Amino acid sequence: MAKQVFINGDFVEEDKAVLHFRDLSVQRGYGVFDFFRLVGNEPLFIEDHLDRFYLSAEGLHLPITFSRQEIKNIILELIKRNNMPGPGIRLQLTGGYSEDGFTAAKPNFIVSQQSFASPAKEQIEKGLKLLSYPYQRQLSRIKTIDYLMAIWLQPVLKEKGFNDALYHHDGLITECPRNNFFMVTSDDVLVTPAENILAGITRKKLLELARNSFKVEERPINLDELKEAKEAFITSTTKQILPVMQIDETILPERKMTMELLQLFQSCYKC
Amino acid sequence: MAKQVFINGDFVEEDKAVLHFRDLSVQRGYGVFDFFRLVGNEPLFIEDHLDRFYLSAEGLHLPITFSRQEIKNIILELIKRNNMPGPGIRLQLTGGYSEDGFTAAKPNFIVSQQSFASPAKEQIEKGLKLLSYPYQRQLSRIKTIDYLMAIWLQPVLKEKGFNDALYHHDGLITECPRNNFFMVTSDDVLVTPAENILAGITRKKLLELARNSFKVEERPINLDELKEAKEAFITSTTKQILPVMQIDETILPERKMTMELLQLFQSCYKC
Repeated sequence: MAKQVFINGDFVEEDKAVLHFRDLSVQRGYGVFDFFRLVGNEPLFIEDHLDRFYLSAEGLHLPITFSRQEIKNIILELIKRNNMPGPGIRLQLTGGYSEDGFTAAKPNFIVSQQSFASPAKEQIEKGLKLLSYPYQRQLSRIKTIDYLMAIWLQPVLKEKGFNDALYHHDGLITECPRNNFFMVTSDDVLVTPAENILAGITRKKLLELARNSFKVEERPINLDELKEAKEAFITSTTKQILPVMQIDETILPERKMTMELLQLFQSCYKC
Repeated sequence: MAKQVFINGDFVEEDKAVLHFRDLSVQRGYGVFDFFRLVGNEPLFIEDHLDRFYLSAEGLHLPITFSRQEIKNIILELIKRNNMPGPGIRLQLTGGYSEDGFTAAKPNFIVSQQSFASPAKEQIEKGLKLLSYPYQRQLSRIKTIDYLMAIWLQPVLKEKGFNDALYHHDGLITECPRNNFFMVTSDDVLVTPAENILAGITRKKLLELARNSFKVEERPINLDELKEAKEAFITSTTKQILPVMQIDETILPERKMTMELLQLFQSCYKC
């Protein structure tokens, strides 16, 4: 049976999950989403992701007409129907079919199962090369669909030989386009920015674990501090914990704490 | 006959103009558009709008597979089929159906006819109330679909009793969310910002006309300068030239040059 998607009130075959071009996501880039992993057929951190999804929707003044329990049931029903263990679930809420093409209307709500590529072993061993780039995500606490700069940057990064960008604003590091950023100082303190970022769920779970074993600081990171860093890594739902081996011209050869945290995270959450 | 829309290769009834939810505009807010008026059934400033549409597409690395002449023919055919004199034409190019939900793919291309509300006589007489707001549109020269801040601001503006926002950055005025901004100084110089804005077509045409009768300067405008301004107005395809009567707490009671320019514009372009 073909893969199914939930759209508004119905489960439909994925090919039939369409939106009219007048939806405010298509016309004005207005919408929110969230994304979580399945471990087998079990949602990981679903409560945290639902919390954030509701906060995002509220942040953009978009009403969710389904109750939290209804959304959970939809997710479980979708997992059951598709029976495709592993991939993630994407929740999406759009600006809806706006009469005037500008004012938010009744949102369209979509729940879909989407596969993603976990980092290959070589990628974890090799680590990422990040290019620092001056940019501040707008409405940064809300998981909006605004990835304009992130996608626009792709060919720029590729041409320069970098894997991803590291955003900074007013001299302070914030985050990567789709990941949170962590640094290990020369005296083994784990540091991550807390302001003007998306509150990542992997970031939150990792911080909880890390506090048991390491000294942890949530505070602004100066661009210049990176030159003295011992290790750095990024976190996200799809990447989990991925070492950074280079930022601009600075090489970060160590990854002791990074790999320890990755093992801790994976063993703790069996993912 | 039902109103038609051109989507990719076909003219279809508007209700059938749909995109799959995996389009990168829906998933990541990635796309460009343009919009021009019809005077009767005649496109206004079509060459300028096509120039900008191609520049926007190139700016976001999105290929347009139709030649300029083909797009013109599609527009003329759509106008003929719909025979609805007056409304505008919207050209839209999306990020396409991305395999990984992040990398731009073959764009979807839509040409639609969309009505819009011209300013009522009372609105022109009354003038707009603008609230200055610190924000800089990303990739400002490209007419992207990113109106996240603009739409997010709507309830905020309404609550405070303002009609629209006036963006500024580093102390300098740039533009309104969907309009360019002009100011008349106390010694009758027409001033409009030229940097970090969208290059509006109405702005361009108006500047051409204004230079014949007035002293014109394209330069940054300081937020503080607004307090000494004699007049101010905004320009756009749908609003043409619309007086501003208040910015924050500052009242701008005059509109002599504004109304002169509006009459000049409308009589010159018969619109």
